[in-house]
Amino acid sequence: MEDPGYDGVRTVLSNHRIPLVPIPYDGEGLDLAALKRSGAKAVYVTPAHQFPLGSVMPVGQRSRLLKWADETDGIVLEDDYNSEFRYQGQPIPPLKAMDAEDRVVYLGTFSKSFMPALRLSYMVLPLRLVDNFRDRLEAYSQAVSPLLQQAMLLFMKEGHYARHVRKTRKLYQARSRTLLQTVQREMGERAEIIGQKAGLHVLLDVKGREFKELTELAAGCGIRIYSPSRHWMNRESCPRSYVMLGFGGIEEDRIHEAVRRLKRIWFEDGASKPKEEE
Amino acid sequence: MEDPGYDGVRTVLSNHRIPLVPIPYDGEGLDLAALKRSGAKAVYVTPAHQFPLGSVMPVGQRSRLLKWADETDGIVLEDDYNSEFRYQGQPIPPLKAMDAEDRVVYLGTFSKSFMPALRLSYMVLPLRLVDNFRDRLEAYSQAVSPLLQQAMLLFMKEGHYARHVRKTRKLYQARSRTLLQTVQREMGERAEIIGQKAGLHVLLDVKGREFKELTELAAGCGIRIYSPSRHWMNRESCPRSYVMLGFGGIEEDRIHEAVRRLKRIWFEDGASKPKEEE
Repeated sequence: MEDPGYDGVRTVLSNHRIPLVPIPYDGEGLDLAALKRSGAKAVYVTPAHQFPLGSVMPVGQRSRLLKWADETDGIVLEDDYNSEFRYQGQPIPPLKAMDAEDRVVYLGTFSKSFMPALRLSYMVLPLRLVDNFRDRLEAYSQAVSPLLQQAMLLFMKEGHYARHVRKTRKLYQARSRTLLQTVQREMGERAEIIGQKAGLHVLLDVKGREFKELTELAAGCGIRIYSPSRHWMNRESCPRSYVMLGFGGIEEDRIHEAVRRLKRIWFEDGASKPKEEE
Repeated sequence: MEDPGYDGVRTVLSNHRIPLVPIPYDGEGLDLAALKRSGAKAVYVTPAHQFPLGSVMPVGQRSRLLKWADETDGIVLEDDYNSEFRYQGQPIPPLKAMDAEDRVVYLGTFSKSFMPALRLSYMVLPLRLVDNFRDRLEAYSQAVSPLLQQAMLLFMKEGHYARHVRKTRKLYQARSRTLLQTVQREMGERAEIIGQKAGLHVLLDVKGREFKELTELAAGCGIRIYSPSRHWMNRESCPRSYVMLGFGGIEEDRIHEAVRRLKRIWFEDGASKPKEEE
């Protein structure tokens, strides 16, 4: 799987005792040469918004990834977990839409775009895997309540879902823009923003600093931020100056205050005791 | 795991590549000597209503099973999937209630006692497994919608659930009694009923006949019955004269008609073409 990559998926795969090979993902995208060398039969990727780096896989690389699948009889697991929220650049269709040879398992969820509390997600299988899926998993009872599936169907049929996504995309886009502008204005050269075109979080590279100190200082003034290191297969490979800022749940007009508070606690006070905002 | 035993659980365990040893379950109950010889670290059992045989594990055997767990540092997975529906004999508390050494993983569900559509089940872990569970499964998002959990909580708090179980127990008890009496009256010596004290199905041993013929004849007159053979680890070990009758979903006053129809098609017509009831 791509490395760094979503640790929730990695845990599920390891618990199924599936041997995992890390395939580096960096500024250039997925390392296809490493994928070829790995001998992997399937690869897990998040092309719409690489998790946690936030980059978008370019079209050329998508074609080469599908070509790899054709040539090796491989499978691409495309986790399109939040493609609804893309704020900059041309929209790029999912890999599944380019999948002429039926090589892509497409995974989506309503947890980001609508309500996590529904526990609703979905999977589109290549035809070649359907019989295998039936043989091995037919006896599983589906975990998703049919009551909620039916409610979601009605919600979509009546157009409410599409409206909801349009509305929240604007909302998140505004929050994203405000966060990026405020970070740039307040922190300038001291913090680099990584992965800003989509999604509900950004990575911040606070140069020359350590995530442990950064998160503790932030916690001290009531802001929870995280190290993304658990998404690297070898945690030590995660740059120690990276921290993760989620902005899905914070009102736009509180973003300024939060960023200023971080600036003060990280770069000015040098102490973990918060000052009250006026 | 107990053999025969619920094939849904067997599939999940095999898909996790957990090596499985069949432990015979027969008229005497679970073969504890075979369990000891197996070297198993954990055993899956359905003491309240052995699935699919329908027998209830006696108290003495429950004590010996817990003793096995203590002596071997083992774990007992107790699937108490429909203990709410017990119609004959003294109620026997679950293994978990006798579990002084904290060796039992207790599994329950609301799918039988209330609504399958909620997809609600639960697990009580021994304290010794809690840390392991957290380490390995903390990253899993729970599949059960918190909306439905909250609704169920209110439903239980206000006493509706307890009333519902009392009501349905009476209903199923009446259906069970009617089914058993009708089968005995109509089929007499030709069919033996297995596992009749609890649950929402019975096994029928239609002596000297084959399940394939029996289920096809039944299907021909609109009655779906099944071979329970998929619940034997080696399907060939299932007596070929066994068929499974579910009665959870059939109204009491239609049971007579259904049993008479089965009697006619199995023992009188000798043909697969159904006669219309007058």
